[in-house]
Amino acid sequence: MARRTGTRGRVLATAATLFQRQGYAATGLNQVLAESGAPKGSLYFHFPGGKEQLAAEAVSASGLRTGGLMAEVVLAARDPGEALAGLAGLFAASLEASGFHSGCPVATVALEAAADSETIRSSCDGVYGSWAEGLSQALRRWGAAPGDALPLAELAIAALQGAILLAKVRQDTTVIHAVARQLTSHVGRAIHDQGR
Amino acid sequence: MARRTGTRGRVLATAATLFQRQGYAATGLNQVLAESGAPKGSLYFHFPGGKEQLAAEAVSASGLRTGGLMAEVVLAARDPGEALAGLAGLFAASLEASGFHSGCPVATVALEAAADSETIRSSCDGVYGSWAEGLSQALRRWGAAPGDALPLAELAIAALQGAILLAKVRQDTTVIHAVARQLTSHVGRAIHDQGR
Repeated sequence: MARRTGTRGRVLATAATLFQRQGYAATGLNQVLAESGAPKGSLYFHFPGGKEQLAAEAVSASGLRTGGLMAEVVLAARDPGEALAGLAGLFAASLEASGFHSGCPVATVALEAAADSETIRSSCDGVYGSWAEGLSQALRRWGAAPGDALPLAELAIAALQGAILLAKVRQDTTVIHAVARQLTSHVGRAIHDQGR
Repeated sequence: MARRTGTRGRVLATAATLFQRQGYAATGLNQVLAESGAPKGSLYFHFPGGKEQLAAEAVSASGLRTGGLMAEVVLAARDPGEALAGLAGLFAASLEASGFHSGCPVATVALEAAADSETIRSSCDGVYGSWAEGLSQALRRWGAAPGDALPLAELAIAALQGAILLAKVRQDTTVIHAVARQLTSHVGRAIHDQGR
C-alpha cells in the first residue's frame, strides 16, 4: 500500500514539474515514466484516464501546494499590502529559481488544454477559484465590503498571473512587484472608501 | 512575386491560428502545410529557421494585428474607462467567438516556448511591450503623470491577460469585464489624485 502510494505520488510530482515547465503537449507519458523511475504499466494502473487524468490531477496537486504557500504568506501578513507584496515575492522567486521556465503551475496547461478537456478545465478552474476565494476571505477580514472582496481578489489573481507572463518573456521579475504595488494602492483605497 | 508573398502570408496566418488555438508543441509543420495549402518545400524556403522562426513571426504578426485593434478601441474612447471596457470587450468577444479555444495570440506560445527560444521570447516581449506602450501614451493624454502611465498600462495589460486565462477555464467572460471595471476605478483615481 505504501509502495503503491509512493509510485503514484512520484509519478504525479514528476508530471506536475514537466507540465509546468514544458506544457501539456510537449510532455509525453514516456518522459514522465522515465523521469519518475516508475515501472512501465504503473501509469495506466494508477491513472486509467491516461495523460488527461494525469494532467488534471497534477494541476490540482500543484495548485493546492501553491495555494498552501499563498495562504501562509497571506495569513502572516498584517495588511493587504504585505499580503500582495508577499504573493509577488512568492511567484517571482519561483520563476527565478526555475530560470524563467516554470511560472504558474496551472497557466500553461490551462491555455493549451482547458478548451478541449472538461476534466482539465475543471481542475484549472478549481485551483484559480480556491486561490481567489482564499484571498477574498483575507480581504474581508481586513475590512473589504462583502461585495468587493471577491472582485478585488480576482483582480489580484488575474493581474499576478498576467505579470508572471510578462516577467517570463522579459526574463525580469520587476513587473510582478510593480503590479503588486498598484494592486496594493487599489485595494487599500477600496477598503478605505468602504470604511467611510 | 505576388505569388511568393501570397504563400508566405498564408502559411503565417495559418500558423498563427494554430499556435493560438493549440499552442506551440501541439502544432506540427505538416499541419501548417496541410491547412494553408502551401506546397511542400515552401515552408523552409520562406522560413529557413523552421518552426521556431515561424512561431516568432506568427506571434509578431498576430500581436501587431491585435495591437492595431486595441489601438482603434483606445483611440475611439473618450476616457480610460471607455478604453478599458473596450479592450475587455475585444478580448471577451475573441475568446467567445473561438468557443473559448483562442485567447491571447501570444500567451500560450510565450508560456510554452519563451524560456527555451530567444527568438520566440523576443517576439513575445516585443508584442506585450508595444501594447503597454500604446496604452501608456493614451493614459498620458488623459492626464496620467509621466511616471504613472506605464505602470498603470502594464497593470492593465497584465490583469486583462490574467482575466482571459480565468475566463477560459470558466468558459465565461464575466471576469474580463469585472477586471476592467476594477482597473477603471484604479486608473481614474490615479489620474484624479495626480491632477490635484
